[in-house]
Amino acid sequence: MGYPETAEGFMVESQKDWQQFKKQEFKLKPFEDRDIDIAIDACGVCGSDVHSITGGWGEVPLPLCVGHEVIGRAIKVGKDVTTIKVGDRVGVGAQICADLTCDNCKADQENYCPNLIDTYGAPYPDGTIAQGGYSSHMRAHEYFTFKIPDNIETSIAAPMLCAGLTTYSPLVRLGAGPGKKVAIVGIGGLGHFAIMWAKALGADVYALSHTPDKKQDALAMGAKEFVCTKDKDWFKPYAFTFDFILNCADATEKFNLPDYFSTLKVMGKFHNVGLGDKPLPQIKAQDFAPNGCYIGASHIGNRPEMEAMFELASKQKIKSWVETIDISVEGCKEAVTRVYNNDRVRYRFTLVNFDKEFGKRS
Amino acid sequence: MGYPETAEGFMVESQKDWQQFKKQEFKLKPFEDRDIDIAIDACGVCGSDVHSITGGWGEVPLPLCVGHEVIGRAIKVGKDVTTIKVGDRVGVGAQICADLTCDNCKADQENYCPNLIDTYGAPYPDGTIAQGGYSSHMRAHEYFTFKIPDNIETSIAAPMLCAGLTTYSPLVRLGAGPGKKVAIVGIGGLGHFAIMWAKALGADVYALSHTPDKKQDALAMGAKEFVCTKDKDWFKPYAFTFDFILNCADATEKFNLPDYFSTLKVMGKFHNVGLGDKPLPQIKAQDFAPNGCYIGASHIGNRPEMEAMFELASKQKIKSWVETIDISVEGCKEAVTRVYNNDRVRYRFTLVNFDKEFGKRS
Repeated sequence: MGYPETAEGFMVESQKDWQQFKKQEFKLKPFEDRDIDIAIDACGVCGSDVHSITGGWGEVPLPLCVGHEVIGRAIKVGKDVTTIKVGDRVGVGAQICADLTCDNCKADQENYCPNLIDTYGAPYPDGTIAQGGYSSHMRAHEYFTFKIPDNIETSIAAPMLCAGLTTYSPLVRLGAGPGKKVAIVGIGGLGHFAIMWAKALGADVYALSHTPDKKQDALAMGAKEFVCTKDKDWFKPYAFTFDFILNCADATEKFNLPDYFSTLKVMGKFHNVGLGDKPLPQIKAQDFAPNGCYIGASHIGNRPEMEAMFELASKQKIKSWVETIDISVEGCKEAVTRVYNNDRVRYRFTLVNFDKEFGKRS
Repeated sequence: MGYPETAEGFMVESQKDWQQFKKQEFKLKPFEDRDIDIAIDACGVCGSDVHSITGGWGEVPLPLCVGHEVIGRAIKVGKDVTTIKVGDRVGVGAQICADLTCDNCKADQENYCPNLIDTYGAPYPDGTIAQGGYSSHMRAHEYFTFKIPDNIETSIAAPMLCAGLTTYSPLVRLGAGPGKKVAIVGIGGLGHFAIMWAKALGADVYALSHTPDKKQDALAMGAKEFVCTKDKDWFKPYAFTFDFILNCADATEKFNLPDYFSTLKVMGKFHNVGLGDKPLPQIKAQDFAPNGCYIGASHIGNRPEMEAMFELASKQKIKSWVETIDISVEGCKEAVTRVYNNDRVRYRFTLVNFDKEFGKRS
């Protein structure tokens, strides 16, 4: 059929063969009055994409087209759309819909809407499965479509839409700013944003990593100190130091959490944004008692936070550290394999050159 | 030797024979200028006493005299004591000392002082082991000694010193008050205080228990609703409802935590004050993601909170639900055995009639 009924994307057909992408057609949801059609020009490669196709997070509807760090051009807008016009350069992150009427949505907590729809792998009310951005087109609700500031390049902007927001939102909600000491654990795709945002917000940033050779990068991103968590008793000099910890690591199951907790101020939080395949290490309630601390996690962020993040990036000229890879069967395979193996990811991939695969779309 | 060098108390000599108390002499710490000597008239029986003597929380120095809900009369005060005079009716809770000079102490977080000394089982700098209130006398630092309001009876006041404060402090810190919906899980020694405090602070209180026959008591304590957590899908009607949960249960290892988490508002907290012998159920970071919630715990409370709690109890005439038991070898055994077996504890025991065992002390 082709657009506007369908789009084309690089899809995985089985979680066993998660490295095998096949270019296929898929159905777009019915066009509604607040929808925007986007001709995609770039898509970031997110850890979520890999957790989804490998089965690390469980089953997904197959075949699946992943990708939720989408940048493109608006080529059609519904009659009730007011914030975007045809031709605008826009982005879509990890959430594509919500009911926008529940208490959470009304309180700017649409990222916790009980009826939220993920950008890929989730069913719309009519049964259409939302498909992601390793593809020619995306049909997105206006509330989850963002105009991209002119001075942020497409490949730089893409990973901000999920990894950027996922770190920016908790940093702001937990009060990162002048006078605060913030620890960022795990210097990867998420962590590199966390360091840059926390620094830009005015906090003193401590980068915690078990990989000593990331020190120079962490300092270049804005960390005040680098703490190597492979060192014996690394936590002892930092007792009661950090206002909170943003844990961006994926392999938290290997952590001795009480060591990390001990570095928090009274009632400080160990906040997870890296959501690994494995459970957290088992803990006792007593482990929180020495400083009355908490552990928790968050799910992306809301629309005002996305807008504020892009404004901050635009004003302070913050740039994602990205490597671009041309989209193709081989390009998708290379990207997800290297993310899976944590193979020289410094610190994010953006799939580009969509015209070559999908033609110029308008 | 006898007082003032020593005191007499009912002590446990081995964690294997934790029900066998023996009246023995023990050494008091050297008297210092801010110390107060107390002739003990009553002592609450706390879950901590049982966790300590049974070994549930690990090893303790033996022989040990437990008890950290102590009420008595000040019979001697050091020359620098300004808040208490001889003859005052006073109380001591679960903490007997702190350095009072560290950043935590200076910020009214002395309950998280890295140099805090527990009321029993902890060493003073000179090596003396602090011993608890199942005894004739206690030597306590002024900062951890509280004047008891005249209109609160001794046996009623005693359990407030640990169980009362342990629940009052997090309720206040988490913002229990008008317009807030607070869930109290576990209607026992801790939980019965939590319901009464939360109600007195103006919150809407939801009592959650797996014991349906506690419903009438919970409502009498001030709960607006009773939720039986043995009912299938009990949590579904309460999705995104509670501002926070105060978990006072001891057996949290049996909970399906995501069910509880689902009842929290966005960024709500599942806060533990019941510290069981066993670890919490293992969880994934993803379990927090549907509402961005947290789990944590706290350790008793600070001096201003203790004073505010007694003022609230005094003004609103809040009374602990207690059963009194005369202190003796048999009385101590009965109390800890019934707490251990959760055998008709409605909802707290206070050991009384100390004069019979220890004589009139002055």
